Amino acid sequence: MKVAELSSRSGTSVASIKYYLREGLLAGGAMTGRNQAEYSEEHVRRLRLIRALLDVGGLSVAAAKAVLSAVDSQATVGHDLLGIAHSQLARAGRSDRADPAWAAARAEVEAFVRRRGWHVSPASPSLDAAADAVTAFRTLDQADLLSLMEPYGDAAEAVAAKEVAAVVARQDPARMVEGTVVGTIVGEALLNAIRRMAQEDASARLLLPPDRLARDSG
Amino acid sequence: MKVAELSSRSGTSVASIKYYLREGLLAGGAMTGRNQAEYSEEHVRRLRLIRALLDVGGLSVAAAKAVLSAVDSQATVGHDLLGIAHSQLARAGRSDRADPAWAAARAEVEAFVRRRGWHVSPASPSLDAAADAVTAFRTLDQADLLSLMEPYGDAAEAVAAKEVAAVVARQDPARMVEGTVVGTIVGEALLNAIRRMAQEDASARLLLPPDRLARDSG
Repeated sequence: MKVAELSSRSGTSVASIKYYLREGLLAGGAMTGRNQAEYSEEHVRRLRLIRALLDVGGLSVAAAKAVLSAVDSQATVGHDLLGIAHSQLARAGRSDRADPAWAAARAEVEAFVRRRGWHVSPASPSLDAAADAVTAFRTLDQADLLSLMEPYGDAAEAVAAKEVAAVVARQDPARMVEGTVVGTIVGEALLNAIRRMAQEDASARLLLPPDRLARDSG
Repeated sequence: MKVAELSSRSGTSVASIKYYLREGLLAGGAMTGRNQAEYSEEHVRRLRLIRALLDVGGLSVAAAKAVLSAVDSQATVGHDLLGIAHSQLARAGRSDRADPAWAAARAEVEAFVRRRGWHVSPASPSLDAAADAVTAFRTLDQADLLSLMEPYGDAAEAVAAKEVAAVVARQDPARMVEGTVVGTIVGEALLNAIRRMAQEDASARLLLPPDRLARDSG
């Protein structure tokens, strides 16, 4: 197909396609003339993955490129790809990491991981991200909400076992790699949306008078 | 205290403080001279909340202002505040909502909510956010991962009941309001970080050879 059809099939503007080609996120098509290239189903598929990383995952183009290089590399084994996806997804730390309060929070997170017996690399960006959040709870004088860490741990453990099993069940390595990236990013968006609906439900049950409870929800 | 001390106490630059004053996120101090104002502990506390909304929650200044107005309004009851916080947190929808595939995903999410017996307002932005994620899974040819919706629902239900109970246990309405906002935003960051650590653990156990499993993690 020509670039115009690739654009309509993938829901991506021609200008964006050219940008992804220039930045190396998308491989070029087969040249059929001086200024004409032919694209395939592989390109449609790849463009959809690029859009998921940028739009759903909120990745920068540079971060998406790093994840896609790992996806393309035959050398990346499943477990390492998860680490690469997590690193690129980690937002730049906003907390002041020289702050003793942050160091204490980081130690608290490490103790949590040890207590649960989880295998987490000391270099995992998730340890820092969790320490950022713990620091924020303490700084904002909401330390009582840290009692939620253990329920979060229980929920995460149950969910992660099923997520990893679903991806590993695929067998085909390329599909596993895709599932790791999409599952991490889109799965997070889905879980967060579902958590908010469950909060709305719990809050309605606890705080709304019965007549409004009946009226407000379908 | 003077603005310089407010700046060092809150870890916020004087320029940022002036910007928040101009934008109405922060109330002015008591004027003690033509160009001198006196600030209180209330200002330190408010600035920390503003920073959490912007830095940890990733809200725009306009969105933070909307959440803070709701926090300030005596008229906002607990349950409605949750709705306001969720609305401001919801990222602008990226999916094409005129697309029949999106409408099908939205219906699928509504059926999921009905099946679980959750009280969710039809106007809740979380329904749209979940539909965006479901559409992304289908478009990316990863529909098998939608089997995770039920485990996500179980995990969210368990976690949300404890989150809402922890906030309601506070009794003081101002502290409840703060807990709702901080718990939604910072709690999401914490849960996501913990989920990734649990994924790393599940992936390591399933995919790494025993010698590397022992070497990689503490």
